Amino acid sequence: MTVQIRVRGYHLDVYQHVNNGRYMEFLEEARWEFMDSTGFADRIAALGYAMVVVNININYRRPALLHDLLDVGVRIDRIGNKSASFEQVITRDNGEGEPEVVADASVTFCVMDQRTETAVVLEGELRDVLASVMTEENA
Amino acid sequence: MTVQIRVRGYHLDVYQHVNNGRYMEFLEEARWEFMDSTGFADRIAALGYAMVVVNININYRRPALLHDLLDVGVRIDRIGNKSASFEQVITRDNGEGEPEVVADASVTFCVMDQRTETAVVLEGELRDVLASVMTEENA
Amino acid sequence: MTVQIRVRGYHLDVYQHVNNGRYMEFLEEARWEFMDSTGFADRIAALGYAMVVVNININYRRPALLHDLLDVGVRIDRIGNKSASFEQVITRDNGEGEPEVVADASVTFCVMDQRTETAVVLEGELRDVLASVMTEENA
Amino acid sequence: MTVQIRVRGYHLDVYQHVNNGRYMEFLEEARWEFMDSTGFADRIAALGYAMVVVNININYRRPALLHDLLDVGVRIDRIGNKSASFEQVITRDNGEGEPEVVADASVTFCVMDQRTETAVVLEGELRDVLASVMTEENA
Repeated sequence: MTVQIRVRGYHLDVYQHVNNGRYMEFLEEARWEFMDSTGFADRIAALGYAMVVVNININYRRPALLHDLLDVGVRIDRIGNKSASFEQVITRDNGEGEPEVVADASVTFCVMDQRTETAVVLEGELRDVLASVMTEENA
Repeated sequence: MTVQIRVRGYHLDVYQHVNNGRYMEFLEEARWEFMDSTGFADRIAALGYAMVVVNININYRRPALLHDLLDVGVRIDRIGNKSASFEQVITRDNGEGEPEVVADASVTFCVMDQRTETAVVLEGELRDVLASVMTEENA
Repeated sequence: MTVQIRVRGYHLDVYQHVNNGRYMEFLEEARWEFMDSTGFADRIAALGYAMVVVNININYRRPALLHDLLDVGVRIDRIGNKSASFEQVITRDNGEGEPEVVADASVTFCVMDQRTETAVVLEGELRDVLASVMTEENA
Repeated sequence: MTVQIRVRGYHLDVYQHVNNGRYMEFLEEARWEFMDSTGFADRIAALGYAMVVVNININYRRPALLHDLLDVGVRIDRIGNKSASFEQVITRDNGEGEPEVVADASVTFCVMDQRTETAVVLEGELRDVLASVMTEENA
């Protein structure tokens, strides 16, 4: 899944590039769209769970500039025992040849039981929900 | 009361000036400091009330630039019947002559009864709290 | 002209409402779209001019909440001698009856001569550009 | 080196925790303070160089909450051949026992030759500057 964001003047900083911190919002925007449109957020909430990001590892490959049109991708690429992760790639497609990778990130999350406030093992119905969201999106 | 903020690269935008939206955070930072240090937040919370901003009218006088040291002021300058207002002036003091006004704002707020979720008349004990905070700060 | 923004978790603050400062970005997003799609930015740049916001007066009417779909409007509503203004209204349309006004703002700007860095009188070709953009958009 | 940041209402998001993206600004604030106070920024600019962040790897350990007083640390912990890195640890010290780690990050940067816009090998005078800044700060 991909959301599009047009780079505006308020996204830039003193270097005239999109600020490092602003990418975190671009990534989060794509995850919200993913969670809403797949029903992921509702499905885990119905089980009494919430998603908690525990690590973000982001590579800044090329500066994004004013007026760039960015595609911010998101897909689940790993379901482990107690954590899973999103792969998120941001590309620029200005209609001039191949899209270029601006940044890519791995976003690791746990699933928290809202009653006990502890991370749960990704098994049973919860794992099924994760796997089905992962498969649908990657199909 | 005044808080100091050093302008950093991530505060700027494509024009290399502090972005218009960022000033709202600078103003809010000063109001949080005001509400905490005067006890204003706690005192109205104890009465079952909360402050709600209903209008901000801000003049941008001069651009603020990288490395500028800004003084963000805040004081209550008006207590009306159902609303009151903060006067907030942002000045730059780079140690070269008189401080210059970068921006000034009037921030109007109501006080909400958290049970009824309606704005209350600023009278009685609530007005006394507002007046005492106004006087102390302006003393 | 209108841009749509879906309210996400990162737009909210401690009150669970869209933060006051974030509205400035929503308003600016709509102005960028306006300036790009009308060619306004390019047309005044070709004349050696740039737009500078000198005042924002915003009324917060109702809190915007998570998942709200906001329409952020922008149109030029006044062309004066040395300044002009945008009217910007933010409405919420959740598909339940009439759209509600969340916030409305008047954004006053001057036009700066980039060589002299002074505000110019809005006359001649510049005024024609402003008037044509105002008329097209309000048509 | 450490900068202190008080968590305010506008730093929080729908989860009532400091938003993931906001931490990037806290980290950047500390790096600006580091670059200014050590003279690092001026010293590499004098050589015709600029610093470019190429990777941020951040662990979110505990949620930071309203009114928390955060210490945001920064030090250079590695100087490699073509990249170096900052270690940045954010701790909360609310005066109740040991400070707790809220987040920690490794921030990898290259040094760009501003004429050629390519990353340079960290050798000679440049390496000396990095090493002296690293040593002073860790002393």
